[in-house]
Order: sequence, then structure tokens, then C-alpha cells
Amino acid sequence: MGLSVRWGTTVGDDRDTLLAAFLHAGERADAVIVNGGLGPTVDDLSQEVAARAAGVDLVLSGEWLTTMEAFFQRRSRVMSPNNRKQAMLPETAEILDNPIGTACGFAMDIGKARFFFTPGVPRELRRMLEEQIIPRLLARSGTQTAIRLKRFHSYGLGESHVDALLQGVEELVPDGSAKLGFRAHYPQIETKVTVRGADETDIDAKLAPVVTEVRKRLGNFILAEDDDTLESVILKSLKKQQQGSLTVVETFTSGQIAARIAPLPGAEAVFRRGVVARNVGELWDALALTVPCEITREAAEAVASAARRQSGASHALAVLIDLDDGPDRIDFGGSICLAIATENDVASRRSRILGGREWVRLGAVELGLDCLRRYLYGLPVTERIDFERT
Amino acid sequence: MGLSVRWGTTVGDDRDTLLAAFLHAGERADAVIVNGGLGPTVDDLSQEVAARAAGVDLVLSGEWLTTMEAFFQRRSRVMSPNNRKQAMLPETAEILDNPIGTACGFAMDIGKARFFFTPGVPRELRRMLEEQIIPRLLARSGTQTAIRLKRFHSYGLGESHVDALLQGVEELVPDGSAKLGFRAHYPQIETKVTVRGADETDIDAKLAPVVTEVRKRLGNFILAEDDDTLESVILKSLKKQQQGSLTVVETFTSGQIAARIAPLPGAEAVFRRGVVARNVGELWDALALTVPCEITREAAEAVASAARRQSGASHALAVLIDLDDGPDRIDFGGSICLAIATENDVASRRSRILGGREWVRLGAVELGLDCLRRYLYGLPVTERIDFERT
Repeated sequence: MGLSVRWGTTVGDDRDTLLAAFLHAGERADAVIVNGGLGPTVDDLSQEVAARAAGVDLVLSGEWLTTMEAFFQRRSRVMSPNNRKQAMLPETAEILDNPIGTACGFAMDIGKARFFFTPGVPRELRRMLEEQIIPRLLARSGTQTAIRLKRFHSYGLGESHVDALLQGVEELVPDGSAKLGFRAHYPQIETKVTVRGADETDIDAKLAPVVTEVRKRLGNFILAEDDDTLESVILKSLKKQQQGSLTVVETFTSGQIAARIAPLPGAEAVFRRGVVARNVGELWDALALTVPCEITREAAEAVASAARRQSGASHALAVLIDLDDGPDRIDFGGSICLAIATENDVASRRSRILGGREWVRLGAVELGLDCLRRYLYGLPVTERIDFERT
Repeated sequence: MGLSVRWGTTVGDDRDTLLAAFLHAGERADAVIVNGGLGPTVDDLSQEVAARAAGVDLVLSGEWLTTMEAFFQRRSRVMSPNNRKQAMLPETAEILDNPIGTACGFAMDIGKARFFFTPGVPRELRRMLEEQIIPRLLARSGTQTAIRLKRFHSYGLGESHVDALLQGVEELVPDGSAKLGFRAHYPQIETKVTVRGADETDIDAKLAPVVTEVRKRLGNFILAEDDDTLESVILKSLKKQQQGSLTVVETFTSGQIAARIAPLPGAEAVFRRGVVARNVGELWDALALTVPCEITREAAEAVASAARRQSGASHALAVLIDLDDGPDRIDFGGSICLAIATENDVASRRSRILGGREWVRLGAVELGLDCLRRYLYGLPVTERIDFERT
């Protein structure tokens, strides 16, 4: 929203520590968002400590009690007596509506800051942020410099490799108002470009050369931008094709590849079938394969082709994994053979990933999906990635 | 470990804010763990700001440079020049080894506290905590009161319901040294009992009646305790049976049920086959079913039985979901029909869950797995849960 988040504090359900945290934040900030501690249980202390911090009394809110009773009634549930505690609010509190839960959000002043108290349940928090808090924050902030965040999601390049590739990109905006940041969440890396400017037009002009250069330097490794995801660009491409549809065959990834695509809105028309087996013999039986039962590129191609034929999908992705034996340590690895089949074509690659069971599984899910993206967008499927050992 | 974590601070990659955070923490705490900011990129500032906070110089560590070069050599990769920055350490730093990454952990004094700097990559952090930091913290803490955390994982009861059921349990330990806490992470709720005592024997004596009472009151809803999980207790039960094996059929849960069990160590001998389809017609084709193609308890039973026969598994779980039409809002729901089949038996239940797409998907995954647990342990599969609407 163009507002800087400067400080985050996490404390336990302890009265003295919470009080110190509220008082500190009230001195340091213009606005403070407090999350959690509004529930019905004994360890939920936010209202009580907020009242103490502001030196006001806790009073029963008839308004919120009524809202809560209606909430339970709509769900044909009986309100438990301890829910009444959730309607005890500091007397200076302004209620922030929570249409999807029983915890009452509220706003009040502590020290020099406006505090916004929100429920710990993530979706209640998000709803309250969007509908109640962000509008109030923007109104309080008045006019301000415009800011924009542009994001690039990539897979296959390590963080320091991305950083090295993007050396000098910040300097494309001579007044220093463009800033690069990275968020590595294995296996993807997010490259964030933040640009400040006088207004949207100024930002457009500053951002354009940076975006062009980042796209050029990271090339095929950029899998999506901004709110798009690897799975959403795959779904988009399949939908654009006449009757595009997908079948997925998995081993050690255990359904995680299917679970990234199949539940998306619109996927019901695209996702045809998913098959999971931990034992390749089981897969060979299920697909009635006659090729040798082993994990090779050729076998992956045969699996993908057979699964596509069996399900009638336009595309099939098969990801076979030969896991190492031995304990789950940093040098534990897996050899991945994956293939993508269409009616008249098949592509495949072999890759070896080290780093422990979970690392191999996550890497294989991403490698499979990314190769499918590359195939669908006409990019090379076998381009070398930083995470593999060949 | 029996050490209290009192305060968490999150700040951005900004020199002034980091400096203020280090100085504050150095006044408040005995020990401070700093996570992140040790990477090779321009926004990694921990070493630089730590040196400033302690008033010492930043110097190149020949020891860590050599370690890093060896790290890259072992992986047949070339060290990028910006990795050299990772070997610049405050001159008073004591190196904490990081055997699985290039970021150098280190310890040093700032203010009255000992600071431990750790890499942001979660598994590097965990390794360093276990091997380097926790032993140093325990050594510094000297003798102390013993403490134990006992955890119960449940599914099907809301947080305020669990709280109401457990009223008075803390008072079973008259000296007030037992404390109840809850962590609601939909769809599971974790009930945590913390007990302090003079020594382990004292704790055993205090904890025993509490554990008995919690088990009695939450009953069949407790799905696992401590480090056990819903999926690990299912796997354990299947392994205990002669040739116990599992096949899973999913629709909107999209492979997420299979993904909870199949990748676990030992699951390769138990998990037989997973089938995912978003379209029930596709499922009927795959299983060659002759019953009417609709989502009912009877159909779920037929699907589970057919999938079990087709794969030869001892048990099959089928979870069929009839999603509502319309936008993804809080009142968007799904009707779930699930069944568990063995060679000579079949059990099923129908349940309706509201709360939006993701809520329904997560709820259905958990309901399916929990019914399978109940079936395997001889508990009622149709016991009513708080999250359903019937």
C-alpha cells in the first residue's frame, strides 16, 4: 500500500511482556497492528492488557455480544459461556467488524499510536485488514510518495547467482529510487524491485527499463511475475489450447504435483487424472507397461505416453524418482527422470538432486512443474539448473 | 529445553532499524538469536550492523573463506565473487560452524547479552541451533528448574469447545505449576500442558493426573500426542497389521491426502496407489464402476471397494466432494462423502463443511485421514465434529 512496516514484535501470552510491548510500540510508531489474543480462552489477553496500557476500563460491549449471538445462531450452534469474554472491550475501543468469526477487532489509542487489534485466525485477519484497517491507515497517512513493488518468481538459479546476474540493475534508475531485494523460499526465489516516485507516471517511467533488463538477464528462469504462480501459468497455457488437459504420474512426490494444480478454480476442466505410487512395479501394473521396469528417461517417456493414452489427456507429466538408500542426511539424494508426453511428441530430462528427503521431494515437484511450463511455452526443458548435480 | 523465549523482533534490511533492534535486545536479554542477513547479497547486513553495535571492526576470516571454498569444491561449483562478503566477520566473533551452507554463523557480545547469528535458510538454522547454540545456551543457563511440555493433537473440536472441556484441569496441580495453552491451526488444535518442577520425578508426579484427565475429556478426538502426527499414527497402525497397505482415491483434495502419507519413511511398503480426479465421471471410468455416477455414501463405498480390489491393498480410503457452485466466499461449502473399505467390510460417512474453497479442502483432507485413523483404531467413524453442518 506504500506504507513502510518498520518493526515487528512477537511476545507470549504474558501480561507484563504484552504491556511492555504495547507501550514500546505506542512510543515508536504512528500505527500498530496487534494480531491474536482475542479468543475465548484463558490465555487470550489482548483486550485486558490494551485497557491497562491505555489506562481505561474494560466494559461489556452489548453491540458485539449481539453480533456474536447472531453468528452462532446462523451456524445452528450454541454459544459457549466463555465466548462472552470476547465481548469485553476497552471503553475507548472503536469496533472493527469481523463478519466471519467471533473475535471482535477494535481500534484505540495507546501512547502516540493508533492500535488496531485483530484476530489470530489468518483469514479473519486478512478480511479485517482489507475492509477495515487498510482504509483507515491510508486515510491517516494523508498524501505520500507513490511506491510500487514488482516481483519476479524464478526457479533453478541460486540466490547469489540471481544477485550476480542482476548486478548494476538498480543503477538503471539514476536517482537511487529503485531497490532490489530477494526472498529465497526453496526451491523458488522471488526477486523484488521496489520503486518510489512522485506519482504513477513517474514510477512507470522508472520501472520500465528495470523490468526489461531483469527479464533479459534471468530469461527462461522467470516462471511467473507478480501474483501469477508456476501452477497458474501452466493452467493458463493449457486452457488456451483447444481441449488442453493434463494427467500427472508421481512417485516420491506423492501427489504434491497434482495438489498444486488440480484444486485451482478452472482446473476441473483441465486436470484429468493423477496417479501416485511409491513402488514403480505398481505403476507398471497400473499402466500395463512392457518396457523394462527401471527409472530411466526412456521409462519416464513410456510412463508419460501410456498415462496420456489411458486418460485421453492432451498432456501427461510423469516424474519418477530413484531415491538413495541410507539415512536422511544432507548428502542424501535422488535421481529424477521426468517426461512430458503429447499425442505426437515426448520430452524428457534426468536430474540428480541432493540435500535430504524433503529437499529432494520439494525440488522434484518444482522441477516437474517447471519443465511442464517450459514445454508448454516452447522453452528448453533440459536447461541446467544450479540445484542439480550431473 | 526449559529456557523461556521472551521476545521476538522482526525488522527489515535497514541499517538504522537493525542497529536499534540489536541494542534494545542487548539490554533486555541474556541471550539473543539473530536469524538471517548473513547471505552474499547487498541486502544482507547482519555482520556489518553487529560490528557497529559492538563497536568493533569487520575483518576477513581466513578460516571461513577456506571453509567456503571447500564447500563449493565439494559441490563442483565455482564460488561467485560476492560470496567473499560472507567471510567478513566482526573481530570479536566466535565462529559457529555451518556444515551445510556458505553463511557463517557466529557468536559475540553486544551489551549485556550473548548474540548468536544464524543463517536464514531454515535447515541451516536448525542444524546450527542443535549442534552449536543450544549446548552453549544450556551451559550459560547453569542449574535451573526443570520444565516439560506435553502436547495433545486433536481434530473435530473447536478451540473454545476444547477450552470448555478442559476447565479445571490446571487445578489438578494445586501449586499452580501446570499451565494449559492452545494453538489452533485449522483444522487441528494443539493443547499444550506445561509443567514446571524441582526435577524430572517431581514433574512426572504432577503431570500424570493431568494427562489422564485430558485424555479422558477429549477422548476419541485426540489423534496423536507429542511428536506423533495423524499420518504417523495411521502408518504405524497399517504397519502393525500383516501386509497392511493403503490405496487412496481423491477428488477436490487433489492428492493432498496421499501427500500426507506416501512420502513418509516406511510408507513405501504400505502406500499402494493414489488416484486423483476432479471429475467423478473420470473416476467411474478409471475404476470401471457400474453404480450410478453421483456423490453419495453408497457411491463412496463402491469407489473405495473397487479401488481396493484393483490395487490389492488391505485398506482403501475414498473421499468424494460435491463442491457448491458460486463465488469463493465464507458460505461456500462442499458435501463430503467418504468411505473406507477392507476385504470384508466398508464404513462411510457424509459431512458438510462450509467456509470457502481452501477451508473445505483442508477440512476434507483432515476428515478423511481422521476417519481412517478411527477405523484403524476401532473408534466410531461417524462421531459428530464441530466443523460440520448437518
